[in-house]
Amino acid sequence: MKKIGTQTIQFDNPVTILETASIVGPKEADGPIAKYFDQCLEDEFWGEKTWEKAESKIIREAVNMAITKSKIPAQDIDFCFAGDLLNQCISSSFGLRELNIPFLGIFGACSTFVEGLCLGSVFIDGNGANNVICAASSHFCSAEKQFRFPLELGNQRPPTAQWTVTGAGCAFLTKNGMGPYITHITPGKIVDMGIKDSNNMGAAMAPAALDTLITHFEDTGRKPSYYDAIITGDLGHVGKEILNELALTKGYNIKANYNDCGVLIFDKEKQDVHSGGSGCGCCASVFSGFLFNQLKQKKYKKILLIATGALTNATSAQQGESIPRHCSCSFY
Amino acid sequence: MKKIGTQTIQFDNPVTILETASIVGPKEADGPIAKYFDQCLEDEFWGEKTWEKAESKIIREAVNMAITKSKIPAQDIDFCFAGDLLNQCISSSFGLRELNIPFLGIFGACSTFVEGLCLGSVFIDGNGANNVICAASSHFCSAEKQFRFPLELGNQRPPTAQWTVTGAGCAFLTKNGMGPYITHITPGKIVDMGIKDSNNMGAAMAPAALDTLITHFEDTGRKPSYYDAIITGDLGHVGKEILNELALTKGYNIKANYNDCGVLIFDKEKQDVHSGGSGCGCCASVFSGFLFNQLKQKKYKKILLIATGALTNATSAQQGESIPRHCSCSFY
Repeated sequence: MKKIGTQTIQFDNPVTILETASIVGPKEADGPIAKYFDQCLEDEFWGEKTWEKAESKIIREAVNMAITKSKIPAQDIDFCFAGDLLNQCISSSFGLRELNIPFLGIFGACSTFVEGLCLGSVFIDGNGANNVICAASSHFCSAEKQFRFPLELGNQRPPTAQWTVTGAGCAFLTKNGMGPYITHITPGKIVDMGIKDSNNMGAAMAPAALDTLITHFEDTGRKPSYYDAIITGDLGHVGKEILNELALTKGYNIKANYNDCGVLIFDKEKQDVHSGGSGCGCCASVFSGFLFNQLKQKKYKKILLIATGALTNATSAQQGESIPRHCSCSFY
Repeated sequence: MKKIGTQTIQFDNPVTILETASIVGPKEADGPIAKYFDQCLEDEFWGEKTWEKAESKIIREAVNMAITKSKIPAQDIDFCFAGDLLNQCISSSFGLRELNIPFLGIFGACSTFVEGLCLGSVFIDGNGANNVICAASSHFCSAEKQFRFPLELGNQRPPTAQWTVTGAGCAFLTKNGMGPYITHITPGKIVDMGIKDSNNMGAAMAPAALDTLITHFEDTGRKPSYYDAIITGDLGHVGKEILNELALTKGYNIKANYNDCGVLIFDKEKQDVHSGGSGCGCCASVFSGFLFNQLKQKKYKKILLIATGALTNATSAQQGESIPRHCSCSFY
């Protein structure tokens, strides 16, 4: 691999995404891309006693499914990169403790899945690994309970609020394969525009997505039209519009081929999710379900996936901190 | 780099640790290795209004200090790997948001610092980066508040309890240098022996440390006597004794050259810390302060550093989950 420009790594032997797997909850099962998920659950508990245990089960089963589909024995998997939104990332660590694969915990909030793809690709292209798995999860109920209010309160949500996806995605990366390939990564900086409203993630994350988007174009010399699709992870409807406008002010018109995982996963008119989906599991399941399918079918040949994460917690919000945004991205 | 054995990566061009920096709190300043830290604080707030903000300041200033010592301009640093114990890793993300360096958030509980060294080394040896920084922090007050009880309660602590270190460490890794070098890494598996007592981290983490220790010896063909020092991250006095005994049952006598960061940082007799230090900041500051100094002075020529992390949170403990342990390690 080599570094090009200021933030981008270009791989010598692009890393193959051999297989993916995705499992989502019942609300996601009613959305417009439901048919692309491997499994849709009928309820938020999946036979477990708590939402946290259910989330662990979702990520565990998504990982097991990706391994099974890959037809590669688990002992040939070198490393696992995974994370989630729960405090101390317990969904992934409890969910994957029986895997018996060396584990590297990551936290990039909603960008966790793409951060995993970035790290996994570097390990593989650098010859440190032949096979790695990257996974992330979120759960509407465990996230609301932890970040906002108890669900039982029935709190009203403002129109800018996003709906945390219940779901997980897992990608199996391998050294020698026939693609789809990860060719470049552009890990992003933390961009903090001072927004303090945890019910308006899109507005806070759009500037971070913009920063990585433009850096990627500058580092690679590419233009928006190079890609069949530019997909952000979880800006939602509000953030998507902001990014469209911000990109235009910088001289990049991305409207023709730009969409967002949080926009794709739910039907805004019918599903009452306000600004769309969010959470580690949103980008992870939309990529592992819908986008990977489009790449395999050659409906999309080149995509740019930019995931952004809201680096906030309940204590920091109470202490009046703003919400810095981290953003990493990766392309196929 | 190349993979050797089952879990170890051996670097082709060992990565240099160019500089380190460490900042610790007042209790650590009274300990036996205080003179090796770059800065010792007089109180736990350091002029901030909250413990969380103080922790952010500690990691920020440790990172700035390492960059200054390196004499390398900040814009030549390719990536930053950092994490901490607070929910959603806000200490590192808020602390480092003004750095303007691409940021990859990591979570390995008390093993976070060593996880950062592992990832940073892979990026450098793989040609994806020339310079990276790796940092981790913890704070006694913010950690107790989050994981156990309000400090104001004055809860009694059992003898097996460890004392979360207030402090941060930062290592500046570079491609072309004169050492000390990182030559191998052995990322660990999650090992869960079913221990549920969050006041007995040492007992829960010792089996994870053992697993990585033995895997490292098997992968490299080395014996304990190869190293001048084998140092674990934060097993404390209780865990250290357990690891000594467990290693012996597996045919490895490590007593002659084995010690633990949590044992080194406090004086057990004079400081009333029960089983010793713990927290992301323990291993980070003990390495960045004491151990790096010993390597530079050639008092230690070869060390094996094994960090273990307790993957738990307050909710999971209430739900009766056990504490799985993750362990990664790295050698100079």
